[in-house]
Parts: sequence; C-alpha cells; structure tokens
Amino acid sequence: MTDTEAQPSVVGPHRYRNGEKLIQVADPGWQAAADHGLIGIRVDAKSNNQLIERNTGHEFANMCSCAYLGLNYHPAVIEGAARALRDTGTTWLVTSTTRIRHNLLAQLEEELGDLFGAQVLPAASCSAVTAGILPLVASGHLAPGGPRVMVFDRFCHFCMAYVKPICGEESLVLTCEHNDLNYLEDICRRYPSVAYVADGAYSMGGATVLEGLLELQDRYGLFLYIDDSHSLSIKGEHGEGLVRSGMTMNELTVIATSLGKGFGTGGGVAMLGSEHMAKFLARHAGPVAWSQNMAVPLVGASLASAAIHRSPELAELQLKLQANVDYFDELLPTSFAGNGLPVRRITVGDTDKAVRMSAELYRRGFYSSAVFFPIVPRGEAGIRIMVRADISRELLATFAGHVDELMATL
Amino acid sequence: MTDTEAQPSVVGPHRYRNGEKLIQVADPGWQAAADHGLIGIRVDAKSNNQLIERNTGHEFANMCSCAYLGLNYHPAVIEGAARALRDTGTTWLVTSTTRIRHNLLAQLEEELGDLFGAQVLPAASCSAVTAGILPLVASGHLAPGGPRVMVFDRFCHFCMAYVKPICGEESLVLTCEHNDLNYLEDICRRYPSVAYVADGAYSMGGATVLEGLLELQDRYGLFLYIDDSHSLSIKGEHGEGLVRSGMTMNELTVIATSLGKGFGTGGGVAMLGSEHMAKFLARHAGPVAWSQNMAVPLVGASLASAAIHRSPELAELQLKLQANVDYFDELLPTSFAGNGLPVRRITVGDTDKAVRMSAELYRRGFYSSAVFFPIVPRGEAGIRIMVRADISRELLATFAGHVDELMATL
Repeated sequence: MTDTEAQPSVVGPHRYRNGEKLIQVADPGWQAAADHGLIGIRVDAKSNNQLIERNTGHEFANMCSCAYLGLNYHPAVIEGAARALRDTGTTWLVTSTTRIRHNLLAQLEEELGDLFGAQVLPAASCSAVTAGILPLVASGHLAPGGPRVMVFDRFCHFCMAYVKPICGEESLVLTCEHNDLNYLEDICRRYPSVAYVADGAYSMGGATVLEGLLELQDRYGLFLYIDDSHSLSIKGEHGEGLVRSGMTMNELTVIATSLGKGFGTGGGVAMLGSEHMAKFLARHAGPVAWSQNMAVPLVGASLASAAIHRSPELAELQLKLQANVDYFDELLPTSFAGNGLPVRRITVGDTDKAVRMSAELYRRGFYSSAVFFPIVPRGEAGIRIMVRADISRELLATFAGHVDELMATL
Repeated sequence: MTDTEAQPSVVGPHRYRNGEKLIQVADPGWQAAADHGLIGIRVDAKSNNQLIERNTGHEFANMCSCAYLGLNYHPAVIEGAARALRDTGTTWLVTSTTRIRHNLLAQLEEELGDLFGAQVLPAASCSAVTAGILPLVASGHLAPGGPRVMVFDRFCHFCMAYVKPICGEESLVLTCEHNDLNYLEDICRRYPSVAYVADGAYSMGGATVLEGLLELQDRYGLFLYIDDSHSLSIKGEHGEGLVRSGMTMNELTVIATSLGKGFGTGGGVAMLGSEHMAKFLARHAGPVAWSQNMAVPLVGASLASAAIHRSPELAELQLKLQANVDYFDELLPTSFAGNGLPVRRITVGDTDKAVRMSAELYRRGFYSSAVFFPIVPRGEAGIRIMVRADISRELLATFAGHVDELMATL
C-alpha cells in the first residue's frame, strides 16, 4: 500500500461488543452517579452496616454488599487468614500452581470438593475461572461432540459475556432471551453439541430455570456452564448453592462461583464433574493456569469459612438471611418477592431518577447502588439492594420507610 | 432450517486462537511432565529454597519462583497482611470497588502512585488489568485518534495474547515478530493510530527495545501497552521497573504489572498517565470494574512491601539479586547473559529432553520448570530458571554443576 491509497477502515466487526456504543450509553449514568458523590467513595469500616466516608465523616450502612451471611467480618474467618500467614510465613509461593501448589491450597481444594460434592478447581477469581474455561467448552474440549454452539443468556454476568469473542473464535456464539427454554430447545434440535451459559442466581435478581435446563441436558446432552456466585453459601445444606443443591453433579456441567461473596473470603472455584477435567483445565484453562491463584491468607480464610459451612452456624445464618429476605419482601414487594434470594431491585425507570434516589438514600445513611443500562435493561434503571443476614429488622424497616417516601416524592 | 438440511459447520474462524491445535501440540509436553511427577506437586514450605513434597517428603529448592527479592517471605510483609486483618476485622467490603473502596486500598493506590510516579489503578491480578484495559485501547478510548491497530509482539505474555479476539472486535489486530521495530514503524506509517502490546522484561527471558519504542511513540504517537511484571521491584530506584524507570510517564503509555512477583504480595496494578484515565477505567475496564479487587490482607501486605521499597533495604536486595544473576551468568552462560534480568532459559531443543532434564534436577533437589511450545517457540524447549536474591552462591554453584553434568550426559 502506498501513502496515497485510501486507508482501509480498521474498525472491528463489533459482533459481540462495541466499546464506543457501550460507553456512549453507559457513561452518562456513571457520570451522574459521580456528580452525586456515589462513585469512588472511600471508607473506613467497622462492619457492613457501619461505613464512614473518609472525606466527610458521613456514616452509612452498606445496602449493596454481597457478603450475604456477613462472613467477611466473621472473627474465625479473619483468624483463619492470620493463622495461615503465621503458620506459613509467606504470601504465596510465586510459582505457577499448575506446577507447584502449597499444601494449604491443596487442602482447600479437597475440603471444598468434599463440601460441595464436586471436583474443585481454584483460581484468583470467578472471572478468571470463566475466562479460562468457557473457550474450552466452545472448542469442544470439556465433553465429547466437537465444538459446541454457545448460547449465552442475555442477562448472564458481564464476566461471561466478556469472553464471547474468545468463544467465537472456536464456535458459533448466540445470545438468547432470559431463561428462554423454547429457544434453547430449538437450538438443541438444530445442532448436535450445544452449551448454555447463564447465572444460577442472577446478579441483578431472579434465578435460572434449573429444572427445564436439566430436562434439556437429559434429552439433548446440553452442556451447562453456570455462574452461581450469588447463591453460594446461602443455599444448600453445606452452602453449595442453588444449582449444585438442585442437581446431581455430572460431566456436562460446570458451576463457577466466587468465594468473595456469601462465602466471605476471595478467589473463585469451578465445580467440575471429574478429576480428569480438573487436571486438563489446570494445564490449559488460560488464566487459571498462568495467572495468580488464591494467596495464602485467602486460602486460610477460606479454610475457616469452610469449617463454618460444616457447622450448625451455617444453617443459623441462612435462616437469619431468609427471615430478612422475607421481611424485606413484606416491606417492599418487588417482582422478585418470594424467590428466597437476597438480590432485590427497586425499579424507577430512568437513570436520572435512579441516581437521585440513590443519592438521597445515601444522604439519609444508606448506600444502595444506582443501576442502569447496560447493568440492567434500558428503561429499567433503579436501585439495587442486597439483603444480608447481618442487617437488623429495624434497619430494614427504616430503609424501607425512606424508599417508600422517596418513591412517592421524587 | 429443517432436520433434513445439512448442518452448517459451527467451527469458528480461528483467527487468533485454535484450542484444538494448541492442545494437540502442547498437551504431550504437559503429559510428559506429569508422567515425571513435575506437575501438580503439593508442598509444605519453609522458604523459597526449602520446599517439601507432601506425598514423599522429598526436599528441594524452588528455582522457578518469581519472588525475585524474596519479599513473599519477608516478615514485615507478612506482618503487614496480619495487621490489616486485625485493624479492619474484614477480608474485604464485598462491594464493587468502582462504588466503594476501603481506605486501605485507597491508601495503597496513593502510595504506589507516589512510589512509581504514575496514576495507579488496582485490580485482582495483572491478567484482570490487561483483560480490562486492552479492548479499550483497541476501541480508541484511552487516547484520541479513534480505533487503534493493535500490534502484539509474538512473545508477549499469554494474558495479553488471550484477549486478541476481544480487541479484534474493536479494531485490526496484528502480530509482529519479537522486538521488530522495522515492522512496527511500517505499521505506524500506514495507519494513523497504532498500539504496541508487549512485555517489558519478558517472562521467558529478554527485554523489550524501549528506546526504539519511545522514538516511535515520539514520531508517530504510538501507544504502548507494556506488561512489566517481571521487572517490578527489581529495577528502578523505587522498584518501579525497567520500563517506568526508562521513560517519562505519559498519556500514550500503560504499564501493567503484577504485585505477585518481585513485589512479593498479590493483585495487579496499571500505571497510567492521568487521573482522568484511572477514573474512566474504574467504570469501564471490564474485570477491573466488575470483578473482585485486592483483598484486605493483600492490601496490607502491599503497603508493607511499599514501605520496604522506600527504604535502603530495596537497594540491598536489588544488589544481592544482581550479584546472583551475574554469578549465574558466569556459571551457566546463556543468550540472555549480561542483561541483568533474572529469568534464564537453558535450551536443550526437544520437549522430551527438557522434561527428562527437569526430572533429574528435581530428583537432585532443584525444581526448574520444563518449558516447551507454546510456552516457548517450537524446537526451543528447555528449562526455565529464575534467579533470586534469597538464593546462596553455594546453591547456585551446586545447581549449575548438576546442569553442566546433565547437559553432557542426557
């Protein structure tokens, strides 16, 4: 090409993402939130319910923490982290965990495997788990049948939608409407190998349609890749989550989950149907293999949290959470009421109103996050609240009173 | 489409990756390493030089830890992590750090920013930093000039090459030969907006050609995205690394780096040219925004490591490392000899020989990692060694003696 020739456009095909469009639509919402002082807040914290803004001294309760059981402040969890540091004297081995891993991490894999009734593969985060595994589901390396058509639920978490272009290198990538089993069955009829990518408990509220998915798996060999971060610890006898407790583990299912939410610590794990799969993924699953893994203090914290998951305390915390969720549904009924999950959204419609509502609630001592497109669908902006076990009924009632008042006046 | 129609192939275009091909070529190497007991080793550890295999009691020195200065075992770093846990009583806030972050994390941003002379953006890992930022470089959102042609150095780390398909959604993605400034200049002449993606100090040895890159930046406005994980802490007056210490920070450069190697802790940071960029990325940079961030104990450990980086101890450790690297180059000269960096490869040629050499060294008390395609180019299999400050000269000499002997006999 000479200098005088017209330059070809370098703009990409925007099949699965379009940064410019996304930012044009999303940034005004973020900017409005920033203008109202709702972004980049820096705090000291005494508990999930007592945060103090550094610059102003403003005190408030965090109504959008995913520490559903309050385990992020549990003394035994904190002591577990400190003990691991004391006992090992190190942050980590600074060596690929594919090659050498600390016994503590190996012990955590075994304990979580036993707790969740699955083979467990650990990673630095649930995002790393997904970025590593999903492309290998697409290329057909986790189950027989060759490359799989990847059907992403339209509401699946960003961390999954983000790797669509990588999956698209390996196979056909489709997006379906939320929980659309009819569409999914149609795809299963058309193609021999299909995978469905979804949340178990959705980060913006609601849940997957597990029974229907298991039927499709049974009938068509549908592969299920489900991120169940938002129900780990809070559902299941040992906190194994909504999806794991609702099915028999098998080799056509991967459940990815964060240990940094209900579990109270950090890092992520995949629950797998076989040890063979775990060994394969430890070699080939991208960031699971070549990135950092869980640091020693988080491993120690997780071992302590696992012990709580085996004790009667887990059921007590789950019941406390459940009572709070039920009470919240009484106080502020939403379309999610009665589903037993802790994520609630109060929809107000436009972004501006959502931001003003969040700002006024913040002034009154409650941080709820304003959510808008693309976090939620267009026209469904609102505030997002996560109910926890460590919120008092009084606090919930006071919060609900403010919401009711603002819904009427804003 | 009816059932009788031929099914269209679902196989993806394999522009930037091909899972099947990769696994077919790479897995035999991994399997050979596994057969020799070199994969998935589980250890207790007293130091980087004293690991004990759980199953056998076999004791060995870790010759492939990236804890170049030994800070992963520094008592002050461990105490920093424990102190943060004690003082805060929590693992983390379990809330999006875009919205609310703990003062400790804010403090770390400020201290690292001051230390490195750059705006600092923290994330769960360096992989998360890169996965979040690179697509926005491609889409043209980090600098004026529209979508950028992305030129990836053929040797750049997996964590960057992994997101080529995501970048390819936004702009033209090219791959150039290692350190090929002529090619890069040619691309800069052809296209108005170009970015180059590379390592600073390469994970498999060697370094980037910084001066030449800065010239191209100066002449053509070339954007530089450089992962300098393997020289952080070990280079620069305050451990700011090879690249940062060799240039004036500007808005056409992002340096991504892991805190989990020489720095001795965990998590990753981007060094940026402006606060504006950091605020933009905190909202829009994928996993930097929606994934976990650094947990409190790692923040505490990192604050303690930052304090060491300000003290005379840093220079002492850097000098110790340098002396060991120089000694290693005397003992076992390689093509990297004299470059002052700690990653060394001893090339033996084929994968099988590399694995046998690594296995025999392991038997003799030294873990070195067998590396083969695609970790290194085909035909260049060998063992990878990382020299550290906390290895004694005696240990290096003994190790080198074994290597010499095995090179002659294997």
